[in-house]
Amino acid sequence: MATIAIHGLCKSYGKTEVLRDIDLTFEEGRIYGLLGRNGVGKSTLLNLITRRIFPDRGEIAVDGVPVGGPGDPLRKIYCMSEAALYPENMRVAELYRWTADFYPHFDRARADRLTAAFGLDPKKRIKSLSTGYASIVKLIVTLSSGAEVLIFDEPVLGLDAGHRSLFYKEVLSLYGEKGCTVVLSTHIIEEISDLLESVIILEDCRVLASESVDGLLERYHCVSGAEGEVMGYLSGREVVHTERMGPYLSATVAGPADREQADRLNLTLMRPKLQDLFIHLTQGKGGTL
Amino acid sequence: MATIAIHGLCKSYGKTEVLRDIDLTFEEGRIYGLLGRNGVGKSTLLNLITRRIFPDRGEIAVDGVPVGGPGDPLRKIYCMSEAALYPENMRVAELYRWTADFYPHFDRARADRLTAAFGLDPKKRIKSLSTGYASIVKLIVTLSSGAEVLIFDEPVLGLDAGHRSLFYKEVLSLYGEKGCTVVLSTHIIEEISDLLESVIILEDCRVLASESVDGLLERYHCVSGAEGEVMGYLSGREVVHTERMGPYLSATVAGPADREQADRLNLTLMRPKLQDLFIHLTQGKGGTL
Repeated sequence: MATIAIHGLCKSYGKTEVLRDIDLTFEEGRIYGLLGRNGVGKSTLLNLITRRIFPDRGEIAVDGVPVGGPGDPLRKIYCMSEAALYPENMRVAELYRWTADFYPHFDRARADRLTAAFGLDPKKRIKSLSTGYASIVKLIVTLSSGAEVLIFDEPVLGLDAGHRSLFYKEVLSLYGEKGCTVVLSTHIIEEISDLLESVIILEDCRVLASESVDGLLERYHCVSGAEGEVMGYLSGREVVHTERMGPYLSATVAGPADREQADRLNLTLMRPKLQDLFIHLTQGKGGTL
Repeated sequence: MATIAIHGLCKSYGKTEVLRDIDLTFEEGRIYGLLGRNGVGKSTLLNLITRRIFPDRGEIAVDGVPVGGPGDPLRKIYCMSEAALYPENMRVAELYRWTADFYPHFDRARADRLTAAFGLDPKKRIKSLSTGYASIVKLIVTLSSGAEVLIFDEPVLGLDAGHRSLFYKEVLSLYGEKGCTVVLSTHIIEEISDLLESVIILEDCRVLASESVDGLLERYHCVSGAEGEVMGYLSGREVVHTERMGPYLSATVAGPADREQADRLNLTLMRPKLQDLFIHLTQGKGGTL
């Protein structure tokens, strides 16, 4: 299994800075969520890791070996990207044969089983597939690649709820079987929150958070109740978000909860949901009125 | 405000039957979720309603007036579709002017406010937008159309969590203001479940369910606990889905819960989640191993 270490990574497109001095480690055998607003540079980061584009500065190494140098370790990684990187005129089954030529550990039996499970016709040409099935082909190839690090960029775009549920189960089952490193970059956060061990949030060209999901969620708490009592509780605390519902107020607060004070004020304490917390932490950039 | 009534609607593409004898009513001033697996015919139904394609048989009427006849009532409806129906070389602001020519009630002030809120550049050409922003342009035009019935086909494709949350808030606020009829066709079900009053599920060419969300959820219940006890509870009941987690079993069951029996067996009863129930009810068609 493989660890990816990133140091001092910088990338701009013309005058637009996308990533500034990024330090990150993807440890082997963990499932990561790579989260960030639209356009924040998640795909840029993944394309830098897999050398589809080149950094302005900084190093990326897999198990201590720099990518792009001698003994290039990139064959340990398979990255499903949003953009299709193969001839679109190919049929699905041809794509499997073509991938097996490049990835000697490609698991054709797994690909065939998943093709049936997702109800995908292997004789179809890739360019004729709907948005959902175009995603499904790419995630089947990634799940079957036999690579030690599997990177999924928007894997569930256009997938219906049943297909998403099947995908999550297949990720967990492959992970249980092989212990591979998995990176999931997605906007559909809440339904993968139980799958993730660690979360990386990109915001404003830098890493806003890189820690375990539990660690992140424990640094915040939600409190709700009658408005006046909630306002009393919030006094002197770092408030991330508030929402009014009639005479009630609910708030997301940084730091540990004070259960005694909450009980005294007749307030309800809750653990935040990952997707809600993500929205509140990143809403400075777009998405607010 | 407007009601849409559909009677005996049939549609096939060549030998492939998509919709069989569909009877449905969208009542005025309600928010509907139109749900179904990929490829089940949701977009076909919406395109039939808006006369972009024609039925093999059956009638569609808006406030009692058939669409496609004299006094065509289609101007009461605006349908955001997955496919772009305007010149892709247009800039965003040009599209707003162009739409205002066709829809005299188009609310340009709302469109401009939403353009800023979503962080969309109105000078961009539509063809240059990312998947997420291409969706955002279409949902802004729909929200601003001034129509009495707003139909959204995959409105959140490619949107990040912050933008999705903003979209849901804008739907609710417009609905509160104007009381329009809203139809949301989407695969991201769980996060809209609180928004919906009614749900229509298409499956296997027909309507599997058309009722209030509460009504649907009350016809099922979830039960979990030690495997043996749960199996005892399930005996003689219609079981929709079971899931094993170590020594525990959780099940989704049709019909009312027996609280007394559940207490006696030390089982936990829960209301199902809409997205999970949808997956279980429709998983015969694809999506299972």
